[in-house]
Amino acid sequence: MDLKKKVSLAVIRRLPRYFRYLSDLLRLGITRISSKELSARMGITASQIRQDLNCFGGFGQQGYGYNVESLYNEIGNILGFNNKYQTIIIGAGHMGQALANYGNFEKRGFSLIGIFDVDQNLVGKKIKDIEIMHLDSLEVFVMNNNVHIAILTVPYEHTPTVADKLAQLGVRALWNFSPMDLKLTYDVIIENVHLSDSLMVLGYKLAEDMKSRANIK
Amino acid sequence: MDLKKKVSLAVIRRLPRYFRYLSDLLRLGITRISSKELSARMGITASQIRQDLNCFGGFGQQGYGYNVESLYNEIGNILGFNNKYQTIIIGAGHMGQALANYGNFEKRGFSLIGIFDVDQNLVGKKIKDIEIMHLDSLEVFVMNNNVHIAILTVPYEHTPTVADKLAQLGVRALWNFSPMDLKLTYDVIIENVHLSDSLMVLGYKLAEDMKSRANIK
Repeated sequence: MDLKKKVSLAVIRRLPRYFRYLSDLLRLGITRISSKELSARMGITASQIRQDLNCFGGFGQQGYGYNVESLYNEIGNILGFNNKYQTIIIGAGHMGQALANYGNFEKRGFSLIGIFDVDQNLVGKKIKDIEIMHLDSLEVFVMNNNVHIAILTVPYEHTPTVADKLAQLGVRALWNFSPMDLKLTYDVIIENVHLSDSLMVLGYKLAEDMKSRANIK
Repeated sequence: MDLKKKVSLAVIRRLPRYFRYLSDLLRLGITRISSKELSARMGITASQIRQDLNCFGGFGQQGYGYNVESLYNEIGNILGFNNKYQTIIIGAGHMGQALANYGNFEKRGFSLIGIFDVDQNLVGKKIKDIEIMHLDSLEVFVMNNNVHIAILTVPYEHTPTVADKLAQLGVRALWNFSPMDLKLTYDVIIENVHLSDSLMVLGYKLAEDMKSRANIK
């Protein structure tokens, strides 16, 4: 039986967070941890932790807790860090360059094999030894290389066109940084990242904080 | 009665998304929309939409739906886009530069007034007309300027120290891009952004997709 099939996306979305905390514990030399201790660190209830981790079979042992390293490895496996995904970036502006230089991605099994832009001032320049190509070469490049994931950091108005093209070329997964919830008619896996959403929430909390401080005074 | 006090953070977190969709509708010249139509666009149930928006009082009218522009403005008000927040960026690397150049933030009421780094090759250079300052000048700068928000794009190991210092200096809100769930003993508002979490989820979905395709063949 394939256990993973039954796991909800909500649980999957929490796994990277477990993974980060476990990696911190490893760094600190902590070899085992109870769901209660992990709960205190993460600010999640212990029962939520047990429930989440039980989805993947019995990692924990009664009275012993979790073996940090094996739980770390298991979650890494589930998240597919042993997979080798070839990625390209469309849009070599500041955000594209920041993502190209984000070392964590390579460590997690995502290797960057191409960067594309339409700006002639950028085409030909190198980021991390990869020469920026013109978007016109995208089609040939994708046909000749096994591109698993395309990272989109293109302007808002061009995002749907570029995404459509990638989907047509058979790229299965898009990581979209345009401030748009990308939805395509093609059957493609999409993760939208909305940086400003998080900043807006911060702004809201700050406004509430300022109000409550003004009331106290 | 202050209605906003009662609104849960879960609802607040959904508001930026409503705001984005409403801004799209405005762009398309659509002046009013029913919760049902909005539901179809956003992939949220109509009852969830009504429930969320009712938290802020009666924006919608029976049989008419929502006036797009006034709902857009109301949500903007709630999220505090009329506030003027002064922000600084700590860490002028690729991500810091990408965020400094992210035009959307200015539009939402966040103005960048300072950028800091410890790298002597960066100090003195300009990003968007703002000269990068050495981190040593942070204290004096914060004392002389009203800094509402600090954006942290510093290496993992330095994040807690820098965050602590900012909190001590009285900066009330931190937007943290280090792959760490920042928690401080100080009472400070923190939003953590974990870019790789989203990429990991994409990787997981892609692995599941590849498995199911392999089974079909």
